[in-house]
Amino acid sequence: MPANVQPGSGQLPINASFSVGVTGFHDASLDREVQRFVGQLSRQTGIPFWPKPGAARTLQIHAEHRREAVQKLGEDESYELTVTFSGAKLAAPTPLGILHGLATFLQLVQITPNGFAAPAVTIRDQPRFPWRGLLIDVSRHFIPLDVLKRNLDGMAAVKMNVLHWHLSDDQGFRVESKVFPKLHEMGSDGMYYTQAEIRDFLAYAHDRGIRVVPEFDIPGHSRSWFLGYPDLASGPGPYTLEGGGIDPAMDPTRDTTYKFLEKFIAEMSRLFPDAYFHIGGDEVNGKQWDANPQIQAFMHAHGMKNNQDLQAYFNQRLQKIVAKNRKIMVGWDEILHPDLPKTIVVQSWRGQQSLAAAAKQGYSGLLSFGYYLDLMWPAARHYAVDPVAMPDAATTLNSEEQRRILGGESCQWAEWVTPENIDSHIWPRNAVIAERLWSPQEVKDVASMYARMNAVGLNLEWLGLTHRSARTHMLHRMAGSADISALRVLADVVEPVKDYNRWDDAKQGPIDFHAPLNELIDAVYPESDVARNFANLVQAFVQGGCKDQAAEAQIRAQLVIWRANHAKLQPLLVQSFLLQEAAPISMYLSGLGEAGLHALESLDKGEPTPEKWRAAQHVVSTAAQGPEAGLLLMVAAPVQQLVEASASQPPHN
Amino acid sequence: MPANVQPGSGQLPINASFSVGVTGFHDASLDREVQRFVGQLSRQTGIPFWPKPGAARTLQIHAEHRREAVQKLGEDESYELTVTFSGAKLAAPTPLGILHGLATFLQLVQITPNGFAAPAVTIRDQPRFPWRGLLIDVSRHFIPLDVLKRNLDGMAAVKMNVLHWHLSDDQGFRVESKVFPKLHEMGSDGMYYTQAEIRDFLAYAHDRGIRVVPEFDIPGHSRSWFLGYPDLASGPGPYTLEGGGIDPAMDPTRDTTYKFLEKFIAEMSRLFPDAYFHIGGDEVNGKQWDANPQIQAFMHAHGMKNNQDLQAYFNQRLQKIVAKNRKIMVGWDEILHPDLPKTIVVQSWRGQQSLAAAAKQGYSGLLSFGYYLDLMWPAARHYAVDPVAMPDAATTLNSEEQRRILGGESCQWAEWVTPENIDSHIWPRNAVIAERLWSPQEVKDVASMYARMNAVGLNLEWLGLTHRSARTHMLHRMAGSADISALRVLADVVEPVKDYNRWDDAKQGPIDFHAPLNELIDAVYPESDVARNFANLVQAFVQGGCKDQAAEAQIRAQLVIWRANHAKLQPLLVQSFLLQEAAPISMYLSGLGEAGLHALESLDKGEPTPEKWRAAQHVVSTAAQGPEAGLLLMVAAPVQQLVEASASQPPHN
Repeated sequence: MPANVQPGSGQLPINASFSVGVTGFHDASLDREVQRFVGQLSRQTGIPFWPKPGAARTLQIHAEHRREAVQKLGEDESYELTVTFSGAKLAAPTPLGILHGLATFLQLVQITPNGFAAPAVTIRDQPRFPWRGLLIDVSRHFIPLDVLKRNLDGMAAVKMNVLHWHLSDDQGFRVESKVFPKLHEMGSDGMYYTQAEIRDFLAYAHDRGIRVVPEFDIPGHSRSWFLGYPDLASGPGPYTLEGGGIDPAMDPTRDTTYKFLEKFIAEMSRLFPDAYFHIGGDEVNGKQWDANPQIQAFMHAHGMKNNQDLQAYFNQRLQKIVAKNRKIMVGWDEILHPDLPKTIVVQSWRGQQSLAAAAKQGYSGLLSFGYYLDLMWPAARHYAVDPVAMPDAATTLNSEEQRRILGGESCQWAEWVTPENIDSHIWPRNAVIAERLWSPQEVKDVASMYARMNAVGLNLEWLGLTHRSARTHMLHRMAGSADISALRVLADVVEPVKDYNRWDDAKQGPIDFHAPLNELIDAVYPESDVARNFANLVQAFVQGGCKDQAAEAQIRAQLVIWRANHAKLQPLLVQSFLLQEAAPISMYLSGLGEAGLHALESLDKGEPTPEKWRAAQHVVSTAAQGPEAGLLLMVAAPVQQLVEASASQPPHN
Repeated sequence: MPANVQPGSGQLPINASFSVGVTGFHDASLDREVQRFVGQLSRQTGIPFWPKPGAARTLQIHAEHRREAVQKLGEDESYELTVTFSGAKLAAPTPLGILHGLATFLQLVQITPNGFAAPAVTIRDQPRFPWRGLLIDVSRHFIPLDVLKRNLDGMAAVKMNVLHWHLSDDQGFRVESKVFPKLHEMGSDGMYYTQAEIRDFLAYAHDRGIRVVPEFDIPGHSRSWFLGYPDLASGPGPYTLEGGGIDPAMDPTRDTTYKFLEKFIAEMSRLFPDAYFHIGGDEVNGKQWDANPQIQAFMHAHGMKNNQDLQAYFNQRLQKIVAKNRKIMVGWDEILHPDLPKTIVVQSWRGQQSLAAAAKQGYSGLLSFGYYLDLMWPAARHYAVDPVAMPDAATTLNSEEQRRILGGESCQWAEWVTPENIDSHIWPRNAVIAERLWSPQEVKDVASMYARMNAVGLNLEWLGLTHRSARTHMLHRMAGSADISALRVLADVVEPVKDYNRWDDAKQGPIDFHAPLNELIDAVYPESDVARNFANLVQAFVQGGCKDQAAEAQIRAQLVIWRANHAKLQPLLVQSFLLQEAAPISMYLSGLGEAGLHALESLDKGEPTPEKWRAAQHVVSTAAQGPEAGLLLMVAAPVQQLVEASASQPPHN
C-alpha cells in the first residue's frame, strides 16, 4: 500500500498498443528493468508487446540522476506515479524509485469487462523504513541460485531491498573461499556457490534494487568451519556436518583465530560490496568454553566474569577487523555489549523491547522477532508486529531513538525447506511483512491486507515463484495419480504445526538434513485460506443469529464436500505410504462435515441439538484439531462454533 | 510399452540408499545422463540422493561401446533392463540404449504402501521404427530455446529421437545466417536463434539421443526470405511478414536462385551435423509462377507441362546441392517425382497411401498424416494411425517396401501456440504417437494407452513441462482472482474446435500472429479427460441397463456440480472481458446438469420421461455441443445419452 494514494477517474486501457518511453537519466540496468517490466506485464496479460517505433508512449518514465554504484542504506527510493485514462507518468529521483513505481504499476493492472486496465490514480510513495529485508538460510538445506533469483524477483515485486544471506552455520559452509578452500570443500556436502556465481548473483540483486548482506555466523553456529580448520574450535572434535547440537564454538582466546578471521573477512569483504557485514553472534551456549581449561585460564587472567564477557571480547576484536575492511558490523541480539562501538547494528530475534533498549543505548537495530516465516504463523500475526510499536506501553522512544530502528527482516530458516517447497514457506506471507516495513504505520486493516496479499500472490506466480504450483506437484507425487481432487480438499484445510513443535518432535535425535521432505506437512501451505474464509463465514453467520440463508448455503456446500471426502480419498490413502498417516485427519474432516450438517439441520428445523451430543462433539473437535502427522485441522474450531450455535433455537425465517 | 516384458516377483525399493554404478563404456555425455536420471528420480520421489562411496549399487549400468559422434538413423537403440527385489541391471550396446532404459526405469517407479518401488521385471526392448520425430514450427510463433529444451526432455522421456525443426516459413526466418544476414534480420521480428545458441541446443539434443533435422521450406512458404532478398521471388513484392496468403514462391528459373541456395545450404549444412536436410517443398500454389511471363517462357522452352514439372526441376537442382553437402534431402509429399533419385525421403501429410506409393517406387518415407497435434484430435485418434497399416486393404507392401517406411513425425504447427501454451498442445498426446512409433504394432488397446499416457503425463511435469500447470496460470489471468474452482469445472469439459475450424473462422482476414492468445480456447486442454471419463461412465451405465448404483452416484455427483456451476461462475464471467464469451457455454453446462439429473430421477422412479421433453432436450444438447467461442462442450453428447435412456422404464432394483 503506497504512502499516498489519490484516486482519479476512469482507467488506462492496457492493450497491444501499450509502450514505455524513457527520458532523463538511464543506464543499462534501468533498460533491463524496463524490459523485465514489459515482460512481466506481458505474462500477466497474455499480450505480446512489440516495439512500435514512433508511437506515443503509454507509460513515460523519467529518472533524475544515477543511483549509487553500490546500493546504500537510506538511498532515495521514492517515486511518483500518475495514471490517467490516456497515459501514465512515473518520475523518481533515481532508477531505484523507478523500480518501485513499476512494481506498483504492475499491481494496478486488472482485468475488467472491457479489457486489462489500470485505474486512474496519483501515487506519491516512499518507504517507512530504509532496511526491509528477507533472511534466507542456505546452510541447513542448500538453496540453488535459480531459486534464490526468483525470490529476489519476488522481493523486488514487494519492494524489499535487503537479502540477508545466511551463508554458514553448523550444517554447511556455502561460499567458495579461495584463501581457505577447506571451508567449502570440507564444510559442505559439495553444494556451495562459487565466487563467480556470487558476483553474477549480486549483479542480479543490484538490478532489482536489493542489497545483499552476507552473514557468516561466529563464534557459535560454526561447526562446518571446523571440519577443515579444527584449530579454530574450542573443543577437540572431531567434527562432522551431521553431528547434532550447537555446542561447537570458535576459540576466542587464541590469536590464530583472529589471524584466520582477518584473512577470511578481507576476502569476503572484497567479494560482497555491501557496507554491512553480518557476523551472527547468536546462541553461543558456552559449553565448549566451560570445558576448555586454557579458555578458563584466559578468562580468569583477563578478569572476565562470564561467557558473555568472553564473547564481547571476541566481538570487539572482530569489530575492529570488520571496520578495517570498511564494513559496518551487524549481529544478533547477543552482540549487544557496552564495550562495542555505537556503529554496529543489532538484529533482534528477541523482540521490540530488546531493540528499544539498544536504540536507547545509541545502537541501530533491526527487528526480526515476529517475522520468522519458518514458525508457520498466519500472515495476520506477522502483520500485527510493528518494529516501533512497543508491546510494553512503558517503553517510549524519542524520535532520534526511533530513527535508529532501521527496519526489519523476515527470516526463512531452512531446517524444513528444500528448493521444492521454500517458495511456499516464504510467499505470499512475506508480502505482508514487506508491507509492514514499507507502508505507513496506520495501514493495518487485516481484511484488506489479505485481499492485497492474494492479489500480489497471483502476480508473484507470473514471476516464476512456485508457492502455489509446487503443492500440486507434491500432491501428485504423494497420490501417484493424476486425480488429486480429494487430496486437495484435505490439503486445503490443514496447516503444519506452529513454532518449534515439529522441531521438538524431531529432536528425539539430531535432524537428518538429507532426509526427504516429501510428506503432506511439507506440501501444505503454512496458512489455509479455505479455513480462514470458512471461519469468517461461520463467525458472521453465527453472530448474525444464523439467519443469513446465502451464508448457510455456502457453509452447507462446503460441509457436504468434506463429509464425502474421506470415502473419495480412501483409495489414495491406502495406496501411498506418504499418505497413510493422514488417514485419521481425513476421517476427522468427514466427521466434521457430518456434524456441521447435523447442526445446520437442527437450526433449520428450529430444534436445538441435545447437550450431550454437543459435548461429545466438543471432544471430537478438540481431538480433530490435532496435531496429527504434524498437521492441524483448521476447520475443527469453526465447525464446533456451528455445533455450539445449534444449542439455541434461532429465530429462523 | 516395451517390445518385451517379463514380469518378475516382488519389487525393488527406491529409498535414500539408491545409487547408480556404471561399468563398461562411458563418456561425459553418459555421465551427464546418469546425473539427470538421478535428478529426475529425486524430483519424482522427493528423495535427495547423496553419493555413497563404497555402497553397493542399486542400479548397475553397462554399455558396450561408444555411440556415433553424429547420431545416425538406425543406430542401435536397444537395451535390456532387469529389476529384481535386490537390484537392477541395465545393459545396452551403446549409451543410446542406456538413455532409453533409464527412461523406462523412471516409468517403472511408483508409490506403494511401503515406499517408492519398481516392480521386478525383465525388459528387452528396441524400437519398431528408427525415425520417431516431432516437428515444431517456430516460424509462425517464435518458441524460445528453453521451451524447446524442455520439450526435448519430454521427447527423450518417451524415446522420440528426431526433432524436426521447422525453421523458416512465410511468417519468420528464425536462424542467424552469417552469409545472408538479411534473412534473419529482415525476415524475422527480431526473434531468431544465433548460430552459437543452435550449437548449444544441438549438443543438448545429442545428449538426449535426439537428432535435429532442420527444415527450410522452399520454394513456397518462403515469404520471409524475400524481405531481405526480393530477387529470389517469382513475383514483384513488396513483401511483409504480416501479409497473408501463401502465393509467394522462389523463382526456379534463375541461376541466381541456385547460387544463393548453394551458399546458404553449405552454411546450414556446416551448422547442422545431421545427415538429413529438409527442404519443405509443400503447398506451392503456383500463382506467382503463372503470373510471371519469364517463368512461363522458361517452362515453354524446357517443355514443362505444368507447375509440378517446374517444381520437380527445382527439386532436382536442389537435390544436387544438398547432396554436394553430403546430406540426404527430405521433403513433403509434393517433392515425389520420378526424376528425383531414390535417396530422397518423402514425408507424407497426405496419408499412408501416398507413403505406400512412394515406397513402391523405391523411396523412403515418413508418416505425418494423422499425427498433426495442432488439429486438436483426441489421443486415441492419433494412436489408431499406423504408418504401415493401410486404410485401403488393396494396398500391400512387401517387406522391403515396408522397411522403406522409416517411421513418422508428429507435427506441432504454430499458428495458435505461444511459448506459454505450446507444451499443453504437444503433451501428453505426443506420448501416444511416440508409443505408436516405438512399440510393437499389436500394442493398441486404447484404455491401457490412456492409463499409460496419464502416468507419463505426471512424470513429464517433473521434467519442467507445463502442459498442465500453464492452464492454471492462464485461468487465473482470465479470472483475475485466486479462486478459479468454478472456471476449472467449465474448462475441464470443453475442447477447442478441431481440424482447421479455428483457422477457417479467422480467415476472414490474415491471421495476426502478434495477437494475444489468452482466451479460454488457448488455455483448455486439446482433449478433456473429464469428458472422456464421463462419457465412458455413462456409456457403461446405460449399456448395463441403468442398474449400477455406484455408477449412478458418480454420474449424479458430477451433474450436481455442473448444475450449480454457472451461478458460481457468473461473477467472473461478468468481470472479465476474456470470459464473457464463455457465458453461453457455462449456461449450457448447468442446463445439461439439470437435464441429466432429471433423467436420473425419472430412471430412479421408473417413470419414463415424456418424448417431447427428450426431443426438446435433443435440440438443446445439439446446440450445447457448440462450437461457441471456438469451444466444444464435450459432455453434451453423454448427457443426451442419459436423456435418451430415460425413455424406457428400466428394470430398476
